[in-house]
Amino acid sequence: MSNVRVAGVGLTPFGSTPERTGRDLFAEASIKAFEDSGVPREDVDALLYGNFMGELSEHQGHQGPLMAEAAGVQAPATRYESACASSGAAVRDAVMRVRNGEDDVVLVGGAERMTNLGTAGATEALAIAADDLWEVRAGTTFPGAYALMAQAYFDEFGGEHEDLAHIAVKNHENALTNDKAQYQRAIEVEDVLEAPQVSSPLGLYDACPISDGAAAVVLTSEEYADEHDLEAPVAITGTGQGGDRMALHDREHLARSPAAREAGAEAYADAGVDATEVDLAEVHDCFTIAEVLALEALDLEPIGEGITAARDGRTTADGETPINLSGGLKAKGHPVGATGASQIAEVAKLLAGTHPNSSAVEEATTGVAHNAGGTVASATVHVLEVVE
Amino acid sequence: MSNVRVAGVGLTPFGSTPERTGRDLFAEASIKAFEDSGVPREDVDALLYGNFMGELSEHQGHQGPLMAEAAGVQAPATRYESACASSGAAVRDAVMRVRNGEDDVVLVGGAERMTNLGTAGATEALAIAADDLWEVRAGTTFPGAYALMAQAYFDEFGGEHEDLAHIAVKNHENALTNDKAQYQRAIEVEDVLEAPQVSSPLGLYDACPISDGAAAVVLTSEEYADEHDLEAPVAITGTGQGGDRMALHDREHLARSPAAREAGAEAYADAGVDATEVDLAEVHDCFTIAEVLALEALDLEPIGEGITAARDGRTTADGETPINLSGGLKAKGHPVGATGASQIAEVAKLLAGTHPNSSAVEEATTGVAHNAGGTVASATVHVLEVVE
Repeated sequence: MSNVRVAGVGLTPFGSTPERTGRDLFAEASIKAFEDSGVPREDVDALLYGNFMGELSEHQGHQGPLMAEAAGVQAPATRYESACASSGAAVRDAVMRVRNGEDDVVLVGGAERMTNLGTAGATEALAIAADDLWEVRAGTTFPGAYALMAQAYFDEFGGEHEDLAHIAVKNHENALTNDKAQYQRAIEVEDVLEAPQVSSPLGLYDACPISDGAAAVVLTSEEYADEHDLEAPVAITGTGQGGDRMALHDREHLARSPAAREAGAEAYADAGVDATEVDLAEVHDCFTIAEVLALEALDLEPIGEGITAARDGRTTADGETPINLSGGLKAKGHPVGATGASQIAEVAKLLAGTHPNSSAVEEATTGVAHNAGGTVASATVHVLEVVE
Repeated sequence: MSNVRVAGVGLTPFGSTPERTGRDLFAEASIKAFEDSGVPREDVDALLYGNFMGELSEHQGHQGPLMAEAAGVQAPATRYESACASSGAAVRDAVMRVRNGEDDVVLVGGAERMTNLGTAGATEALAIAADDLWEVRAGTTFPGAYALMAQAYFDEFGGEHEDLAHIAVKNHENALTNDKAQYQRAIEVEDVLEAPQVSSPLGLYDACPISDGAAAVVLTSEEYADEHDLEAPVAITGTGQGGDRMALHDREHLARSPAAREAGAEAYADAGVDATEVDLAEVHDCFTIAEVLALEALDLEPIGEGITAARDGRTTADGETPINLSGGLKAKGHPVGATGASQIAEVAKLLAGTHPNSSAVEEATTGVAHNAGGTVASATVHVLEVVE
C-alpha cells in the first residue's frame, strides 16, 4: 500500500464569473495544478471529477471526458456526483486507487458554474440535493433546512445567533489573505446580526455565497513522487465516507451529523490518528451552524460545545485548532463540485507552509478536510499529514 | 488481491413504466439481488450507483443516499455519472474496492426513469451526453451522430443497411426468452428495412428504445463468499476503462472506438485472457452500428469485418461467439443508468447456467460486458469467468 502524495494543487478564483464555462474553469485549475506539481500530463492515469449541477446550469452531463479534454489529459475520466460532497467522493476513490496501485498518478478535482442561473435559479438547482419527493415539493430549501438544524441545536444545547455570527466573522477574517476568496473583506458580529433574515435563526451572513470556480489536485504514489523528485511533502493518509437518510424527517436528531461522524472515525482510524492530533481543519460551513455540527461530528469539540468554539477563540487563526483558515465556504465561496477538492488543496498548502495563512499553524503536521452533501446525507473526511 | 465474486443480481422489467420513480425501480432490483445472493443487507459496505439524467427526469440529484435508503442499506453511497456508461463506471470502482480489500461487500447498480419525459423530452435529455457547446447547439442528436458513424463505416469498409438489420433481428430473437426485455417479439430483416428512417442510414429499428428500469448486483470478496457458503460461481476478473474526445469532430476516425479498445485491452490484460478466449459478450448496441464498432474494438472481429458478423451467423445464439444473448440494448431496453450493471447481471447468469439462454453457451467459461457513454467518449469493459 502506497502513501498517497499531494503533488500539486490549482484553484481558480472563486466568485461570480457567469460568463465562464465549466470547462474553462477546470482548464485553469488543472493548468495550475500541473505547474505546481511538475507532473507531465501524459503521466496521468485517470481523471476523477466532481460536478453537481452541470445538467441544469450548462445542459451538460458526461463531464468526465469533457474535462479530461479541458485539462489536456488523455485518460479515462469519471464524474462523481454527491451533491456538495461531489469532489470529496472523487478524492476518496482517487486515494484508494493510488494507494492500492491501480493508478500511479490521478488528477482529481471539480468545478461548478452556478451564477449564470441567477440567485433564484441556483437556489432551485441546489434543491436537487434534497429529497424531491418529500422535501423539495413541500417547500424545503437548504437555508430552511439548516435553519431547522440550528433551531434544534439551540433547543437542545442552548446558544444563540450571536454565537453563530462569530463563525462568519472568523471565516471572513481568514479569507482576507486568500486571493482566491470570493469575499476578501472583514465583517463584524453586528453585520451578521443586522443582515436580512433568511430563515430564522439564520440570516444572509450565515450562508455561503453562490459561486463559480474550480479546483484540481494531482495525486501520486509515494514511489512516483520519489522517483521523479517531486516536492510533495504532504500525504493523504486517511479517507472515510459516511451516509445518512436523505430527508431531515427521517433523522433521529436534527442537530447531529452521523454521516460526518462515521466518515471522520473511518478516516482517523485509516490514518492512525485521533482527533486530539488534528492541528487544523477545513470543514463544510455552507451555513454557520454547519461548522458547529462538523466540529462535533469530527470530535474536535464535544457534543453541545461547538457553538462557543469561534466566539471563545478556540477555532480562530490564533486558537488551538484553527478551522477554515482558507475562509471556508462562507467567505472563500462554494462552487459546489469544486469544494471538496479545494479543501484538500488548502489543507495541503497550510501543512506545506505555502499558504498565506501557514504562519498561523507553523508547527502543524496533521490536517483534516470535511466535505458534506445536502443536509449531510453524504460526507467524506480526509486526513492529511506532513511526511518529510 | 481478492477475486471479486458476483453473489447475486436483480433486474426490474425494462420497459415503459412512467409512473414508477427511480427509487421504486432500484428498490425492486435490489430486493431481487439480495434474495438472489443470500447476503444480508447489513453486510453491505458501500453502494456505488449509476444514474444519468435524474436531474432532468426527476429533479433529483444526490441519488446515492436516496438509493441506499431505497435498497434498505445503511452504507456510504456515491452516484457515478458517465452518460450511458454510468453503472459500468460504478462496477469498475466496485471491483477495485473489493479486490483491494477496501470493502468486502458492495452493492452496485443503477436505475433510470426516462419515459415520463416523453420521446422528445427524453431525446433532449439524452443529448446532455454529447458536447452541448459544439454538438448539441449545432443540432446533433444521438441518432444523427451514430448515423454519421455508420456512414463513415460504410464509406471505409463497405456494408449496407441490410447488414445492420441482421443485428436488430438477432437481438430481438435473443430477447424472446428474456422476460425482463422491453420487446419480446421477433422481427424480420424487412421490418428493419421498411421502418421509418430516422437519420440515414439508420431507421427506427436500428435504435434501442427509451426505457425505464433498474439493475443491482451484489459483489463480494472471494473470502466473504467462501466464508458464507455463497453460491457465487462467477468472478469479475478483469476491469478496464477508456476515454476519448467528447465531440465527434475531434476524433481521428468516426468508425472506430478507441475508448472501447483501450478499455477492452486493459480488461483482457487484467484478467489474463485474450479475445480468442471470449465465449460470449454483452455489448452496448444503442444503435445497430454500435454493436459492429464494439465487436471490432474488443477484437472479437477484425477491423472492417464486424459488419457481417450477425448476417453470417458468427454472433447469433448458435454462432461461435454469441453477442447480446439478453437481447441487448436494442430489444432488452436501455434504461441508461441501469445498463452497465444489467450487462454484468446477464453475463453472470449466462456463465452460471441460470439464464434462459444459457443453453446456447453451455461450455462457456468467459464472458465480456461492454458499456459505452455518448458516442463512446467513455467506455468500460469487464471480463467475467467461471471460477468453480
